[in-house]
Amino acid sequence: MSGEIDARRVLERINALAGCSAEDGALTRVFLSPQHRAANKLVGGWMHDAGLEPRIDAIGNVVGRYEGNQPGLPCLMLGSHLDTVRNAGKFDGMLGVVAAIECVAALHRAGVRLPFALDVVGFADEEGVRFQSTLLGSRAVAGTFDASVLTAVDAEGISMADALRAFGLDPARVGDAGRRRADVLAYVELHIEQGPILEREGLPVGIVTAINGAARFAVEIIGEAGHAGTVPMAGRRDALTAAAEAVLAVERLCTVQPDLVGTVGRISAMPGALNVIPGAAHFSIDVRSPDDTRREAAERAIENALDGICARRGVRLRMSRLHASGATPCAGWLMEQLATAIAARGFRVRKLASGAGHDATAMRDLTDVAMLFIPCAGGISHNPRESANVEDIAAGCEVLLQFIRNFKPRLAQKT
Amino acid sequence: MSGEIDARRVLERINALAGCSAEDGALTRVFLSPQHRAANKLVGGWMHDAGLEPRIDAIGNVVGRYEGNQPGLPCLMLGSHLDTVRNAGKFDGMLGVVAAIECVAALHRAGVRLPFALDVVGFADEEGVRFQSTLLGSRAVAGTFDASVLTAVDAEGISMADALRAFGLDPARVGDAGRRRADVLAYVELHIEQGPILEREGLPVGIVTAINGAARFAVEIIGEAGHAGTVPMAGRRDALTAAAEAVLAVERLCTVQPDLVGTVGRISAMPGALNVIPGAAHFSIDVRSPDDTRREAAERAIENALDGICARRGVRLRMSRLHASGATPCAGWLMEQLATAIAARGFRVRKLASGAGHDATAMRDLTDVAMLFIPCAGGISHNPRESANVEDIAAGCEVLLQFIRNFKPRLAQKT
Repeated sequence: MSGEIDARRVLERINALAGCSAEDGALTRVFLSPQHRAANKLVGGWMHDAGLEPRIDAIGNVVGRYEGNQPGLPCLMLGSHLDTVRNAGKFDGMLGVVAAIECVAALHRAGVRLPFALDVVGFADEEGVRFQSTLLGSRAVAGTFDASVLTAVDAEGISMADALRAFGLDPARVGDAGRRRADVLAYVELHIEQGPILEREGLPVGIVTAINGAARFAVEIIGEAGHAGTVPMAGRRDALTAAAEAVLAVERLCTVQPDLVGTVGRISAMPGALNVIPGAAHFSIDVRSPDDTRREAAERAIENALDGICARRGVRLRMSRLHASGATPCAGWLMEQLATAIAARGFRVRKLASGAGHDATAMRDLTDVAMLFIPCAGGISHNPRESANVEDIAAGCEVLLQFIRNFKPRLAQKT
Repeated sequence: MSGEIDARRVLERINALAGCSAEDGALTRVFLSPQHRAANKLVGGWMHDAGLEPRIDAIGNVVGRYEGNQPGLPCLMLGSHLDTVRNAGKFDGMLGVVAAIECVAALHRAGVRLPFALDVVGFADEEGVRFQSTLLGSRAVAGTFDASVLTAVDAEGISMADALRAFGLDPARVGDAGRRRADVLAYVELHIEQGPILEREGLPVGIVTAINGAARFAVEIIGEAGHAGTVPMAGRRDALTAAAEAVLAVERLCTVQPDLVGTVGRISAMPGALNVIPGAAHFSIDVRSPDDTRREAAERAIENALDGICARRGVRLRMSRLHASGATPCAGWLMEQLATAIAARGFRVRKLASGAGHDATAMRDLTDVAMLFIPCAGGISHNPRESANVEDIAAGCEVLLQFIRNFKPRLAQKT
């Protein structure tokens, strides 16, 4: 089967997409921007060359259709997103779209039609950079798009509704992008891992078991500001030393369970002067796990620990939950078929959780989902240094093609 | 002797000075500003009413002279500063100037001339807000003004030289503000404590033993950024968790010695996103003590602790010293005379270090110095809530007046 996938072409296309950027020398491409339009045009052209019939749907996703052995069959949906974070890497999202097109191209060249259709989607927005609301493209397809976000405005004050109009779309008709359950057999996404596990283990592919659930907190600790020279150590109610203990508690309490992670990514001390004892400290906590029960237990343990630290230090704690989302389990029957494809290609089957969020999270409201990971260098992502090597890209595409060729819809899906 | 000091008038004048502000509803008065000119004019008027002969010196200090029992005698110099931090309290600095005028007024009313002159100075700049260079007024008087700061510019790009010219002064002649050693017997400053000790002990006055020496450091810890969801806890090199340990080490190592204080007032994590493991953390360390040997030992202990933390966590440490200044000891013979005055007023003699810097630090290059503290509410300073009560102000002024009346120059000073 080797020779069917041209991984160098995949890389060339990744590089071509990286050229659709709002910044010189850095990759930034947000929802409904001129760069989004340019990326859709490139991808639509490649879809066309691969035998897919491309269209732009009502939210700005580019969707290519490769009919099965008769027209109008339910589809196996493949894809990922085409938008990026600011100063992004070029593999996150794009690789899944280009890889899916490459697989269809191989089938098309071989004249293969399957007993189901293939839809490849380049989702318009997953990162949520422009309107601070994520998964817009996949939510529209899944039929869970929240029309209230149409009034959200970007940094320049442009509403999402106006941005859709400027893109040639009708904000009143975003619902038209939604697909019927009966028309979609499953959603399968290839993506870089964005973490270090596959690279460490020397594996070219891995099967995602679940996309982590996540909870985010904003924490404020209120102590008492004072002059750094005049207030003796014994009488201080320093908000930052309390926060420092809290940061270490998050680390300690999230190290006890496999797959549980906890991060303080932001911190500040107020007033933030070199010579003033911090009277307040603000920081974020991000806790994730593929297992909601374990994550919620960790959240409670963190909250208890912070209560104890603040009580002992005589400072006040305000902890508010900004966000919580349950884990997205991948479907066992799809994982099995992916495992069969991986074994057939001669690779060890490695299952791992996805720490990052993906379009599959939104798609699960419509259909069963699965994800195939390939390694990225150093586990680095959301960074211009993001990189995946051509051998792993080839292996990922070949496994995906093997999976597609042998895909058996689940009977229960047809109801 | 009671009745000689009118503490309510002192408070009224403090309030009047607070009206000379660049901001409505907040007190901000910087060097060579229109508000500085207005404050000098108010103070000059009060000096005149108290029998002092006021002038503006070559750096913009307002200096009032009360001759001794013959003209031209060496002076005991009293005073403090008239500039403020941003959004300041109204006692820091101003109280020392107004209190000194009140003491001279009492002598003047009683027709007392002493065997030495009294000079009261309202220093033009102690805080260094406008040009980021502190103690400008007292350095000029002490003869240690560094002419290179004349080229420093403020936030609007105005150089200090131009600001002096706009104030009616000649930057080439700042040196003229310098006083001869033989003409100044001692410098004594009354100030609010800016810390909580006197209030806690219920004392109206305290004698400063030394003004803390201080060292300031900028610390950078370099780890490795990563996705908060995808990088397992075990493989992380989180710069912020290392910084949190460092913050607690500073606290622990500065709690072991009396009068030693250590503060982390500023901290940040980079890139500072909720969902990114910090790849770098920056923070400040401020260490102070009235004892230079102890402070330097604490600095070494902190540096060793940080080295250990960073080595264990596999992150890199860069620690650079931004500033170091030795402690300013107050003169024993002046402290003794202050103690005698305090005991004569019936108060317990309490000696304490000054955590904050003062004009006395610069004045010590010219003459022996001493300071008298009065409590401020909650130890709060550099804050609009800064407050001192009228009883303590009265006690402070009465002790200062008692000290002045009985002041005996040190023989050695006369050489």
